[in-house]
Amino acid sequence: MIVESVGQGVTEFKEGDHVLTVFTGECMQCRQCTSGKSNVCEVLGLERRGVMHSDQKTRFSINGKPIYHYCAVSSFSEYTVVHSGCAVKVSPLAPLEKICLLSCGVAAGLGAAWNVADICEGSTVVIFGLGTLGLSVAQGAKLRGASRIIGVDTNPEKGEIAKAFGITEFLDPNDSNEPIQQVIKHITGGGADYSFECIGDTGMITTALQSCCDGWGLTVTLGVPKEKPEVTAHYGLFLNGRTLKGSLFGGWKPKSDLPSLVEKYMKKEIQIDEFITHNIPFEDINKAFNLMRAGRCLRCVIHMPNAKATLVKE
Amino acid sequence: MIVESVGQGVTEFKEGDHVLTVFTGECMQCRQCTSGKSNVCEVLGLERRGVMHSDQKTRFSINGKPIYHYCAVSSFSEYTVVHSGCAVKVSPLAPLEKICLLSCGVAAGLGAAWNVADICEGSTVVIFGLGTLGLSVAQGAKLRGASRIIGVDTNPEKGEIAKAFGITEFLDPNDSNEPIQQVIKHITGGGADYSFECIGDTGMITTALQSCCDGWGLTVTLGVPKEKPEVTAHYGLFLNGRTLKGSLFGGWKPKSDLPSLVEKYMKKEIQIDEFITHNIPFEDINKAFNLMRAGRCLRCVIHMPNAKATLVKE
Ligand SMILES: [Zn+2]
Ligand SMILES: [Zn+2]
Repeated sequence: MIVESVGQGVTEFKEGDHVLTVFTGECMQCRQCTSGKSNVCEVLGLERRGVMHSDQKTRFSINGKPIYHYCAVSSFSEYTVVHSGCAVKVSPLAPLEKICLLSCGVAAGLGAAWNVADICEGSTVVIFGLGTLGLSVAQGAKLRGASRIIGVDTNPEKGEIAKAFGITEFLDPNDSNEPIQQVIKHITGGGADYSFECIGDTGMITTALQSCCDGWGLTVTLGVPKEKPEVTAHYGLFLNGRTLKGSLFGGWKPKSDLPSLVEKYMKKEIQIDEFITHNIPFEDINKAFNLMRAGRCLRCVIHMPNAKATLVKE
Repeated sequence: MIVESVGQGVTEFKEGDHVLTVFTGECMQCRQCTSGKSNVCEVLGLERRGVMHSDQKTRFSINGKPIYHYCAVSSFSEYTVVHSGCAVKVSPLAPLEKICLLSCGVAAGLGAAWNVADICEGSTVVIFGLGTLGLSVAQGAKLRGASRIIGVDTNPEKGEIAKAFGITEFLDPNDSNEPIQQVIKHITGGGADYSFECIGDTGMITTALQSCCDGWGLTVTLGVPKEKPEVTAHYGLFLNGRTLKGSLFGGWKPKSDLPSLVEKYMKKEIQIDEFITHNIPFEDINKAFNLMRAGRCLRCVIHMPNAKATLVKE
């Protein structure tokens, strides 16, 4: 996105700047932002519901009727208004049509592997769900030197694709009569060191916990479930040394951390291009939604050559 | 306990040695014991059910009928047989009638605070349940320099007792119409850094998660629930940065770690005596159970002056 203008008091951006806009912001002043150990900003975090936090109003309307901000960025429009705390200045040399994937999926997966799980060299990792999120976790695990990266997906076509991102073994739960957690326990001699739930299914969080080992097994949940928001698991899983941890945007603070990921991409230290299976003009956006719902894409990049943003403080 | 004799192949103990016997052992050879990051021994851990692991048989019987080993140690008897992997040699100078509390409660609480949570100086801690386990967590938190240690118990008499162990604020959930997690959120400005479930109630694990803060809140569960073994919690608690971790015997490896705790006690660096509210002869053991059920004691030490053990390998 390119900055069209800035509102009162915004000094860190100017017209023409290249920015990534992010669904969760960084106010740099709240208890969370100043803690040095969290990216769950209290001011610009997930609690907002389509309005600006200063006055609880929208900056869009049609015939006087408010149009709500979508995920803080409303990026499915050619002109948007975004809080400056949800925008990150990036190098104008970085191709926006690629690095836009760092505004969520790819960054969220890498961060879950690096910041949240902090994967050790030589470890065994299991990933449930091989969409962009899961495959980004795989990439992160591979770059950390994990020796076994087991990918689990009910779509058998994912097996081949996944190898390009670091998956060393592919399991389709439908291929076995045994529950998938039992299969994983067998092939890993007691369970994996780390498991990641990248589907958005609370039932799979339990399966992921059961798939990691006693003593130090760590399960990271990244998905946002569509149904049944309650996670349920036998207390014995915890008593025997397992840990369950959540990952919001991979633990990255957008402003503080994203520029370094853009730099890694420019130095070819991380893959992004490989996740883009489709490039689609804005007018065909519904094709992209259909591909996504059918599980026939990784990321569809929607092209809006003239997309601009106004960044505001209030 | 004093060693009466040793079985074939047992070389690390001899007659007359002073030992602590522990419900979870350390074989020093399995994947867990050799990992350097776990005390959940695969051979001598919780999975055993009252029999010796080598032959799945008991070492006690009455008229040919097997008597099962209780919690691996069967220490409610004046003569017992214990796997040498569940015994820890200690200094003969240490008073057994005091350091026996390190075989579970006090050590489990200290370890939950130090090994599992790894409490930082200046942090805020909430402890649910102020029995020996909870008060030992409080002691551990205090020794780590936690600045606020909030104790929660439905028994109002615990308030005074708890102060001696480091509790800085006492909350009785019955004193407020608001749910206790809301009270804690208010007084801590968003939740504690750490919360500990020391009751053995899976519902309280959820309350403990809700009582700690977004971003880095860590809940440690120590209790073994009597009913409802399933932990249930909204996925959003994890997504917003919380972690749930279990603690088995405070993460201590019995053989490797307990001698250092005995030493700390001898140097008066940790409190044990203060937990002993009653000393009861073996013949009155049922009085101790009654006190425990009525919540009218911390620890009752059962005195068996002639208690002896045979330590075996098989
Ligand atoms: Zn903030
Ligand atoms: Zn072992």
